[in-house]
Amino acid sequence: MLEDLKQKVYDANMALPKHDLIKFTWGNVSQIDRESGLFVIKPSGVDYDELTPADMVVVDLDGKVVEGKLNPSSDTETHRILYKTFKNIGGIVHTHSPWAVAFAQAEMDIPAAGTTHADTFYGDVPVSNVMTADEINGEYELATGEVIIKTFAERGIDPDQVPAVLVHDHGPFVWGADAAKAVYNSVVLEEVAKMAYHTMMLKRGNIRMNQTLLDKHYLRKHGANAYYGQPK
Amino acid sequence: MLEDLKQKVYDANMALPKHDLIKFTWGNVSQIDRESGLFVIKPSGVDYDELTPADMVVVDLDGKVVEGKLNPSSDTETHRILYKTFKNIGGIVHTHSPWAVAFAQAEMDIPAAGTTHADTFYGDVPVSNVMTADEINGEYELATGEVIIKTFAERGIDPDQVPAVLVHDHGPFVWGADAAKAVYNSVVLEEVAKMAYHTMMLKRGNIRMNQTLLDKHYLRKHGANAYYGQPK
Amino acid sequence: MLEDLKQKVYDANMALPKHDLIKFTWGNVSQIDRESGLFVIKPSGVDYDELTPADMVVVDLDGKVVEGKLNPSSDTETHRILYKTFKNIGGIVHTHSPWAVAFAQAEMDIPAAGTTHADTFYGDVPVSNVMTADEINGEYELATGEVIIKTFAERGIDPDQVPAVLVHDHGPFVWGADAAKAVYNSVVLEEVAKMAYHTMMLKRGNIRMNQTLLDKHYLRKHGANAYYGQPK
Amino acid sequence: MLEDLKQKVYDANMALPKHDLIKFTWGNVSQIDRESGLFVIKPSGVDYDELTPADMVVVDLDGKVVEGKLNPSSDTETHRILYKTFKNIGGIVHTHSPWAVAFAQAEMDIPAAGTTHADTFYGDVPVSNVMTADEINGEYELATGEVIIKTFAERGIDPDQVPAVLVHDHGPFVWGADAAKAVYNSVVLEEVAKMAYHTMMLKRGNIRMNQTLLDKHYLRKHGANAYYGQPK
Repeated sequence: MLEDLKQKVYDANMALPKHDLIKFTWGNVSQIDRESGLFVIKPSGVDYDELTPADMVVVDLDGKVVEGKLNPSSDTETHRILYKTFKNIGGIVHTHSPWAVAFAQAEMDIPAAGTTHADTFYGDVPVSNVMTADEINGEYELATGEVIIKTFAERGIDPDQVPAVLVHDHGPFVWGADAAKAVYNSVVLEEVAKMAYHTMMLKRGNIRMNQTLLDKHYLRKHGANAYYGQPK
Repeated sequence: MLEDLKQKVYDANMALPKHDLIKFTWGNVSQIDRESGLFVIKPSGVDYDELTPADMVVVDLDGKVVEGKLNPSSDTETHRILYKTFKNIGGIVHTHSPWAVAFAQAEMDIPAAGTTHADTFYGDVPVSNVMTADEINGEYELATGEVIIKTFAERGIDPDQVPAVLVHDHGPFVWGADAAKAVYNSVVLEEVAKMAYHTMMLKRGNIRMNQTLLDKHYLRKHGANAYYGQPK
Repeated sequence: MLEDLKQKVYDANMALPKHDLIKFTWGNVSQIDRESGLFVIKPSGVDYDELTPADMVVVDLDGKVVEGKLNPSSDTETHRILYKTFKNIGGIVHTHSPWAVAFAQAEMDIPAAGTTHADTFYGDVPVSNVMTADEINGEYELATGEVIIKTFAERGIDPDQVPAVLVHDHGPFVWGADAAKAVYNSVVLEEVAKMAYHTMMLKRGNIRMNQTLLDKHYLRKHGANAYYGQPK
Repeated sequence: MLEDLKQKVYDANMALPKHDLIKFTWGNVSQIDRESGLFVIKPSGVDYDELTPADMVVVDLDGKVVEGKLNPSSDTETHRILYKTFKNIGGIVHTHSPWAVAFAQAEMDIPAAGTTHADTFYGDVPVSNVMTADEINGEYELATGEVIIKTFAERGIDPDQVPAVLVHDHGPFVWGADAAKAVYNSVVLEEVAKMAYHTMMLKRGNIRMNQTLLDKHYLRKHGANAYYGQPK
């Protein structure tokens, strides 16, 4: 079942340590097959050395495990609600990558400070709202997804244009057209977090780039008038 | 004698440079066999390239070398007193990992600033009390262990829930159920020290996470109601 | 056509990830053949894994693609105008190397703070002027080159003596006698940016070295009286 | 001639990039044969890839090249005067290792902030005096050595107990009993510079350790009462 998708999700998970985004098993990647409404996700707490594509778990959008012998990632409910709500996304990554975590713990958005950021994220990457005690003590992983969704809605951020969030005092969730693209965006997020940090140390105060340059860089790579790369 | 334990302790020592926790021979790992009351520890100042499992030294809880041709680690007395006092721990690691050392030298606890920390440490990782001149000039390595124990007692910290300390102006001692788990906890300590440092640079003032989130993350991985990972 | 030059440009591009100067495809290198007035540049947005010397694109100084099946780098116009104006340079590198970007985003020159800097750059490495909305929305990549040229002219900086610039809120362009030398200079730039950053954190205020020491180090490696290295 | 010493000096030079102490050719190592009064040093500006043991240059204490087809390191005169004056040292390393350079450029000693430092350096690692214009414009490399010697003399620092200096706005010179030990000390210097930097960012003000702890750690590894490691 979905063997091709399992391989892709497996490959994307294995890319996390290669890109220095995680230690041990501190991350998870999933990808959805929009046609069947099923998504494939990493099992919970299995060493990356022992992981195989066949270990990937298939889950439906009601949260039911459709196939797989292992428990799916403890963050499965977060992935599920994001797929249900953000209709255009195809892959999700969660890590504790350290530069992004520093901003999450400082409760600060990663400001759009330069073209490296603008090439992928069309504006600041937000920190999510603080979760209430009820949300934490209730269905925590589901509530984590809901607070992400609420943060984007309240702040009017388009998840297709800013494909990442910093969950408050936790770490990044990042998405994209598929799992591989979500991994790519995770690498960018970590790099721009590092760049923004050092910029903020050099220059206190507002480090945001101007809107014209942000528009230019985002739109030369995304949307109808993109001209970067080779014709497709 | 204890050949299996020697291999485990050897492996755990060899894991220190792999995880970038040490330079040269600046670390040591031990593991105890609680049944016999004997622990196995790395010899002092031997290059990691030349180390073999057979070089590991067996010591009893009175500090007597029971087997081994080489001097045990100069920190053996610190390990011994910790095993004697912290009854549940099975492995101990000492390193000079640089982010943890920065906090030890700044005489600051590593604050529990986010879920990466809370997944392993149930609260701040403390700096030990300052050692007196008498303690330093007397049985120094033993006194190092005693000051750790006193710090935990005075501050009411449970060593099973916060399995690490920063020895003042020195570096971390970290423990766990066995040597491998103590190495794991050492990697986490170094990572959360790095994350906390950058968070503190971004945001001066209190960066501690709220207690509800700390409880949630620690307890979903530890204790009776843990639900992370696969059933055992 | 220019097969030897293509190989050199290919090699120089492949050196960027080896020196940790780029993630993914975030960089480009070119080299010019001054005799024919043609330069060779990396194609746009092709994975480094898939790149071959034959993929390199040949462009003339009017911006016409003379040979090559792929689109040249989106920054080709920046390279072209720099070659046209800075008559002595033979190779150009563009990256988003993170320490240089931090200065570009902070809108700060990298100060000549020590001999590591002075061995390659004869003075501060400037941030370019801010681009206007018209420049950004017009022929952006050409305007990027023009603003570099204007910055050097206005500030009286000799591009042969300071072979690098930080494009404002973007990243470094670096040049040299050929592509390989431009890559070398890019590594130096990133290293001196990192050193200057940490110096500035330790010591607020002016960290510039004195002019005598700057002269000494730059001139013992460059120009008629250089005495570093082996006779040529 | 001195083939064994050439091999050792070659090995020590090759260790510099392995320990991430240098980029390209930015370092040099030498070792002296005190009996013959000859020292062996790396040639100037040769790529590490192309270097062979036979390329090492033999120089006497008057600065005459006794054997070798290549120019010796441009820093040879600094090495020579240090060997002549610091009678107990056997090997010297010069690098531009970035954490040490940050302190050199900030004109700050590396404070003895913890036991990692005290295990190797018996006190702060000093920045050298500022060189005068005459010293820079005269016999620069010789004057570099002389200013190091003067700094140690004026400040009453014993070069056998503090085997390193930060040349002002330049970088570290480090020494030891032989070339290999000088490389070891260079790694320690870079590591303690990094640790001290982060400690200073966490805690402004004096971060020096107390003298009793400094004595304890230095003397348990050095001198008559050392007890670290295995019996010799």
